Amino acid sequence: MELYIDSANLKEIREASSWGILSGVTTNPTLIAREKGADFRSTIQEIATLVDGPISAETVSLDGDGMYKEGIDYAQWHPNVIIKVPSTTEGLKAVYKLAKDGIRTNVTLCFNAAQALMAARAGAFIISPFIGRVDDVGVDGMGLIREIVAVYENGGITTKVLAASVRHPRHIIDAAIAGADVATCPLKCSSSR
Amino acid sequence: MELYIDSANLKEIREASSWGILSGVTTNPTLIAREKGADFRSTIQEIATLVDGPISAETVSLDGDGMYKEGIDYAQWHPNVIIKVPSTTEGLKAVYKLAKDGIRTNVTLCFNAAQALMAARAGAFIISPFIGRVDDVGVDGMGLIREIVAVYENGGITTKVLAASVRHPRHIIDAAIAGADVATCPLKCSSSR
Amino acid sequence: MELYIDSANLKEIREASSWGILSGVTTNPTLIAREKGADFRSTIQEIATLVDGPISAETVSLDGDGMYKEGIDYAQWHPNVIIKVPSTTEGLKAVYKLAKDGIRTNVTLCFNAAQALMAARAGAFIISPFIGRVDDVGVDGMGLIREIVAVYENGGITTKVLAASVRHPRHIIDAAIAGADVATCPLKCSSSR
Amino acid sequence: MELYIDSANLKEIREASSWGILSGVTTNPTLIAREKGADFRSTIQEIATLVDGPISAETVSLDGDGMYKEGIDYAQWHPNVIIKVPSTTEGLKAVYKLAKDGIRTNVTLCFNAAQALMAARAGAFIISPFIGRVDDVGVDGMGLIREIVAVYENGGITTKVLAASVRHPRHIIDAAIAGADVATCPLKCSSSR
Amino acid sequence: MELYIDSANLKEIREASSWGILSGVTTNPTLIAREKGADFRSTIQEIATLVDGPISAETVSLDGDGMYKEGIDYAQWHPNVIIKVPSTTEGLKAVYKLAKDGIRTNVTLCFNAAQALMAARAGAFIISPFIGRVDDVGVDGMGLIREIVAVYENGGITTKVLAASVRHPRHIIDAAIAGADVATCPLKCSSSR
Amino acid sequence: MELYIDSANLKEIREASSWGILSGVTTNPTLIAREKGADFRSTIQEIATLVDGPISAETVSLDGDGMYKEGIDYAQWHPNVIIKVPSTTEGLKAVYKLAKDGIRTNVTLCFNAAQALMAARAGAFIISPFIGRVDDVGVDGMGLIREIVAVYENGGITTKVLAASVRHPRHIIDAAIAGADVATCPLKCSSSR
Amino acid sequence: MELYIDSANLKEIREASSWGILSGVTTNPTLIAREKGADFRSTIQEIATLVDGPISAETVSLDGDGMYKEGIDYAQWHPNVIIKVPSTTEGLKAVYKLAKDGIRTNVTLCFNAAQALMAARAGAFIISPFIGRVDDVGVDGMGLIREIVAVYENGGITTKVLAASVRHPRHIIDAAIAGADVATCPLKCSSSR
Amino acid sequence: MELYIDSANLKEIREASSWGILSGVTTNPTLIAREKGADFRSTIQEIATLVDGPISAETVSLDGDGMYKEGIDYAQWHPNVIIKVPSTTEGLKAVYKLAKDGIRTNVTLCFNAAQALMAARAGAFIISPFIGRVDDVGVDGMGLIREIVAVYENGGITTKVLAASVRHPRHIIDAAIAGADVATCPLKCSSSR
Amino acid sequence: MELYIDSANLKEIREASSWGILSGVTTNPTLIAREKGADFRSTIQEIATLVDGPISAETVSLDGDGMYKEGIDYAQWHPNVIIKVPSTTEGLKAVYKLAKDGIRTNVTLCFNAAQALMAARAGAFIISPFIGRVDDVGVDGMGLIREIVAVYENGGITTKVLAASVRHPRHIIDAAIAGADVATCPLKCSSSR
Amino acid sequence: MELYIDSANLKEIREASSWGILSGVTTNPTLIAREKGADFRSTIQEIATLVDGPISAETVSLDGDGMYKEGIDYAQWHPNVIIKVPSTTEGLKAVYKLAKDGIRTNVTLCFNAAQALMAARAGAFIISPFIGRVDDVGVDGMGLIREIVAVYENGGITTKVLAASVRHPRHIIDAAIAGADVATCPLKCSSSR
Repeated sequence: MELYIDSANLKEIREASSWGILSGVTTNPTLIAREKGADFRSTIQEIATLVDGPISAETVSLDGDGMYKEGIDYAQWHPNVIIKVPSTTEGLKAVYKLAKDGIRTNVTLCFNAAQALMAARAGAFIISPFIGRVDDVGVDGMGLIREIVAVYENGGITTKVLAASVRHPRHIIDAAIAGADVATCPLKCSSSR
Repeated sequence: MELYIDSANLKEIREASSWGILSGVTTNPTLIAREKGADFRSTIQEIATLVDGPISAETVSLDGDGMYKEGIDYAQWHPNVIIKVPSTTEGLKAVYKLAKDGIRTNVTLCFNAAQALMAARAGAFIISPFIGRVDDVGVDGMGLIREIVAVYENGGITTKVLAASVRHPRHIIDAAIAGADVATCPLKCSSSR
Repeated sequence: MELYIDSANLKEIREASSWGILSGVTTNPTLIAREKGADFRSTIQEIATLVDGPISAETVSLDGDGMYKEGIDYAQWHPNVIIKVPSTTEGLKAVYKLAKDGIRTNVTLCFNAAQALMAARAGAFIISPFIGRVDDVGVDGMGLIREIVAVYENGGITTKVLAASVRHPRHIIDAAIAGADVATCPLKCSSSR
Repeated sequence: MELYIDSANLKEIREASSWGILSGVTTNPTLIAREKGADFRSTIQEIATLVDGPISAETVSLDGDGMYKEGIDYAQWHPNVIIKVPSTTEGLKAVYKLAKDGIRTNVTLCFNAAQALMAARAGAFIISPFIGRVDDVGVDGMGLIREIVAVYENGGITTKVLAASVRHPRHIIDAAIAGADVATCPLKCSSSR
Repeated sequence: MELYIDSANLKEIREASSWGILSGVTTNPTLIAREKGADFRSTIQEIATLVDGPISAETVSLDGDGMYKEGIDYAQWHPNVIIKVPSTTEGLKAVYKLAKDGIRTNVTLCFNAAQALMAARAGAFIISPFIGRVDDVGVDGMGLIREIVAVYENGGITTKVLAASVRHPRHIIDAAIAGADVATCPLKCSSSR
Repeated sequence: MELYIDSANLKEIREASSWGILSGVTTNPTLIAREKGADFRSTIQEIATLVDGPISAETVSLDGDGMYKEGIDYAQWHPNVIIKVPSTTEGLKAVYKLAKDGIRTNVTLCFNAAQALMAARAGAFIISPFIGRVDDVGVDGMGLIREIVAVYENGGITTKVLAASVRHPRHIIDAAIAGADVATCPLKCSSSR
Repeated sequence: MELYIDSANLKEIREASSWGILSGVTTNPTLIAREKGADFRSTIQEIATLVDGPISAETVSLDGDGMYKEGIDYAQWHPNVIIKVPSTTEGLKAVYKLAKDGIRTNVTLCFNAAQALMAARAGAFIISPFIGRVDDVGVDGMGLIREIVAVYENGGITTKVLAASVRHPRHIIDAAIAGADVATCPLKCSSSR
Repeated sequence: MELYIDSANLKEIREASSWGILSGVTTNPTLIAREKGADFRSTIQEIATLVDGPISAETVSLDGDGMYKEGIDYAQWHPNVIIKVPSTTEGLKAVYKLAKDGIRTNVTLCFNAAQALMAARAGAFIISPFIGRVDDVGVDGMGLIREIVAVYENGGITTKVLAASVRHPRHIIDAAIAGADVATCPLKCSSSR
Repeated sequence: MELYIDSANLKEIREASSWGILSGVTTNPTLIAREKGADFRSTIQEIATLVDGPISAETVSLDGDGMYKEGIDYAQWHPNVIIKVPSTTEGLKAVYKLAKDGIRTNVTLCFNAAQALMAARAGAFIISPFIGRVDDVGVDGMGLIREIVAVYENGGITTKVLAASVRHPRHIIDAAIAGADVATCPLKCSSSR
Repeated sequence: MELYIDSANLKEIREASSWGILSGVTTNPTLIAREKGADFRSTIQEIATLVDGPISAETVSLDGDGMYKEGIDYAQWHPNVIIKVPSTTEGLKAVYKLAKDGIRTNVTLCFNAAQALMAARAGAFIISPFIGRVDDVGVDGMGLIREIVAVYENGGITTKVLAASVRHPRHIIDAAIAGADVATCPLKCSSSR
């Protein structure tokens, strides 16, 4: 299982990058917003200089067209940029159009395996089940990882399963054993030893 | 597992098609009838411009000959048209004759694995077990999918298993895990998140 | 699993044949006798024009030599004719001699796996365990199919296992899952949906 | 499994109490300190008017004698007060002496089953394994609950197992399935549905 | 599993041979003696004209040298003759010497898997566990077949396992399922249907 | 498991009785007939002086009324006499009427668990599955004992299960492990050590 | 599981008795004969002063009457004397008659569970399966203990199972785990630590 | 599972006793010798004032008589004194005689379940398998605990199983789960949190 | 599984090396410090002359840069030197930079599988879970080995799993069965037979 | 599984060799000493003329150098000589040095799997676990074979596992089923049928 960092803080990313464990980065508008004075594009581009792997940049439009346009824009910033869109029908539209343009996407806010199947069908590069938030509603987050892995294996699907909303190191171990391809977590979680 | 939409509504199909998840379409006379003013042939042909995959068009004859003639007719509308016939002995006759003419069929209203075996023997391209309706009569719909998959695997049969009469996303997940090749559902179901 | 029809009624066979599901036909003297005015030879030959697959024609002699002679005779009617003989020692003799002449046999009235093993050793093309009648005497008919399949697999035997004396569609499904190669049943059973 | 609330906020406790799900309360100095202007004693006594069940009040001394004295003091505030002490050897001393005086204790900060066994031997009324913090160090928190339950069952021990450091509703479900007697969590966690 | 007949009666062998199920013959001095006026050599040679497969001829010497000499003699009667010797140390000696001369042996009267291992090591072509007699002394005969098969598979041993002392058709079925290569039984047993 | 002897030979019964292992006797017309000059009634009465337990005396009528009359007659010979009738519908009639008169029966020639259930429902004191003969037809005799025991346990039936047609000591052990209440066998079988 | 010593050497018995582990003694003519100058009766009586538990004294007659008479004789020597007889039909006769006289027996040389069942039926107090000698013939000695325990438990039989012919401490442990009531072994084996 | 301390150091025992977890004490000559200037008797008696439970005092004689005399002596020091003797035949003698006098013993240095069985038969109050030392010779120490528990349960034996030679807290947990009644360890091990 | 010695004592290493079992050496500052008058570099170089395999030399810096510099230095002493760094984020930095320079590392003080995953991602050559110390805190050390092996196998990771902090030969056996690649232990442990 | 004889008696070896089952010979000084007047070297050389397979000749030195020298000497007697050394650290030294010289060794007196792993690492050709003696100390000898086989399979180790200290034919069967490559036993054991 590969490890991504869930952060837009250059200092944190530089730090984690220096540990040599980073295979990618996931960001979101909240994380970007936390970085005062930061410009989105330059932040992403700077991250791209620090980490040699997929960097998820999240769109903020609510409709597929808007997401698509944002995606087209972001994708020109750096070849490693992955367009992050939500598990909504509008999100699927964007995934589909971006995939046709050869642009990779990360479908986020995934809470069940049906969403994961649809995202994969639409052409998603990464699917991000939110295990912590799934646990929060009393469902078995790790069971969700296992279901998605089973559905993908049955269908010969190659979309990467990324365990998101990771809360503690045990989640990382369990996700690896459940067959996730990647886990992403904040710096604090990775270093909470 | 691939996903088809169960609809004849061009707007819905265009919508779902825009999500990029559609590998095919299933229609039926009721669905067609709902589309006021729609001409069957032009509806199917328009659908064919929207989705690049099998489009099931249902026959309305009650006898095999009638179904066969309808099938011959529909098949000329577009190469992607699949002739949908019921799991009756008349339906089998149509499947058999159409198969000899190289025309693909979708045997629908399947409620048990013996029907699925017979349809496959007659040359069906798709078998459509109706899992929701099977559940309705107190039988285990998912168990039916598993039995058909077992019977097909034992016999080296390549007819596609399409989970029809899908009621909710859980049905989609379970069908994928049970080994179905395709699931079809209305737009509402796919987006009921 | 392939499906045969257990009938000598040309109308029924023509009917079932029209469904496209027939891979063969099994007849017996009782079935032939039911067809008033029918001549055995012409009946079989007419069946052969309807179905392109093995057609079991049953011998009526009680001794091996008689069965053999009948078999030699029947075999000249049509290349698809399979000689049906009972699971008796006289039957085995006929199987053996016919096999040496390159004529295929169907050993019928099989009630246990030892008979099935002996028939296979003698060169039978098909073995026909009578699952309905086995169930009738309180023994597990499906268990018999499983035992024969196990004995044949252990011994690398290629004789086809034909589930005969099928009573209802569930028998067909269970036989397919148990590993039978063929099931034969009357028209009524196949269409009892 | 019973549910306690992990809070010293009277408003929260009153709220949860109104739901009818509360069998007890756990507090700690940090929680008390959050309630500005609150006096420890009066807070606990007021809680006791709201909830009819064990109310854990934590000692702050580092040595057994100090804990014992605090315990003696707290116990006079209300019959439902349970003295909370850490899983240290000094904590065990306090548990033992308080138990001899008939005062109930809750041994907290438990990270392994050997500690749980020792606490039970010393006379603890409740043992509080910290499942979230155990997960944080990459160990299986739920596995710890199962081990303690097994050790207690083998030894006929009646000390209650309280799942503490609960992070989300899934933890509550899993603890109940693992055999915990009680789980405690903040209001937010209970209501995050 | 192949079937041999356990008989020296030419009429019986001719009968069973006519069924086409015979892959070989096992005889013993008692069986030979029952055939009044029969000469051993001519009996074996006549059997060889009836059955095209291994024909076990039993030695009567008690010492290895005597068995060896008898074996050398018998082997010249017909290439299909297999020398039958008992599971004694003298028997092993004969097996070993005959194997070096390229003559095949059947080690009989085997009652445990250690004997079967030693016979295989000495070069036996066939090992004959006596399942009926093992049952007679209250031990599980079929369990013996399973043990020998396990020991042979672990050791990559190719000696054939022949179920001897078969009492009824169930023994034949069970031996086939347990993994025996051959079963031998009297004519009566094979035909007791 | 208790042991009965299957014999009408007074010498044999006296012998086995002297071993102290006899809990009863089963006879049949063939066994009685073997005893030259023996009168049925006096034979049974003499047996009753040798063994203090159930003595099965078989009826010879083919219809229920006849069996009933014979049973009424035999029952007056000695209180330990059990009326033996076959597993036919006529036999069931006799069992039922005899049971109402307080006379015990042994239902023999049982080949499947459905017969055993019917016999028990009719009021049989003993049911006699014929395990050796069941093996002879290639069915699993011990499996039959297990099925009857399961059916009886499920139904709270107290009819005794008697393993009949026992061939060798292994049958006795296996029947005891399978849960039979009694086994009956000829003198030879019991002493074949 | 209780422990007996298998010895007639007073020094050895005194030694083992001094360890406090002896619940009984088993002797046999060979053991008695080894004690030069020892008189059988006085040896047994002296043993009875050393050990307060069953002392098996073996009969030497070959017929039941002889064994019975010897048994009657031995039983008068001391109330703890148990009459040891072989697992033969003559032995059963003696067991039966002695049991009627209230004299306890130990049925020895038991090699299968059918013998054990018959001995129990005849009234044996102890059954002695010879596990070492069973292992010697390649059969699983511990499996024999398990079969006898199963047969006795199914039948509600209280005859004690004594593991005899014990070769090493592992046999003692395995017998205890398999459910034997007693094990007997020579002094050397008990002390081989 | 109860906890004992393995120490003769009064300070340590007082410390552990103050934690309230002590159900007993095990000492040995090496431990006593470490306490400079300590008199054995007074040490034991002082321990008895600190802990209200079994206190094992080890004998130093090599012969049973010597151990017995020491045991008699020690037992008069305090009613809680348990006499510790080794798993030798001399040790068994002492156990037996002391048990007859109503004095309790702890049989130590136990390395296999046969020793444990003999100790229990001799009347031991406690058996002490040395799990650490068993691990040291490459055998599975916890497996030994499980075997002893199984042997004792099968035999209705009430001797307590004390896990001795405990090396770390994991041993304590595993022993409790394996079914030990007591574990003893040095102070350091208990507090190594 | 390979074996390393955990020592810096040349005499011990020479000794173990002479047994032919050494595939490598692990040292640490404490071990080096025990060797009075020894110079670190010359000690390591001398070890390299004794053992032809990886020799772990531990860094003492607390920061990644310091560890990196030490590592660069040590690596020049001998091609077999492996740089040992702790499972801290600073340690990961050093691992990553050294890996880029082609220098192998051993990540030590590993207590959970998340650490093991991160170390592997950073490029570690060896990961050293400390099973003894994990046992010390009441967690299952062997379970940790199994988790790391599962995580590594799922991810196709080739970092070697080295069982460190081994306490006794049983640990070595269990680690080998759990799938560790290497175990390291002091001389005493290896020879404690 | 191959069979070796454990003997130095030429007559016995000639005898067993004549059975054709011998794949090798194991000797030891005690066995050699029993052969009065026999010279070690000539005995081994004569054995080599009788058996074409590994012949273990045991060293008598206590130190590795002495064993090595003896080994060098023995190896020159015949290419089939295998040097037998004990499972001590001195033994390992000899194994290692002999392996470097291309001389094969048999490491004997193995009582646990850690020893077996070390012997394999040192280069042993054969490891000889002593199952009988392991049973003697109450440990499960067959369990030891299974552990060694597991450790060797996990590590890709090709050292042969030889079951030594075999006591009876059951040991041979169980060892073969447990996966041993060879078993060695005295002539008596092999022929105890």
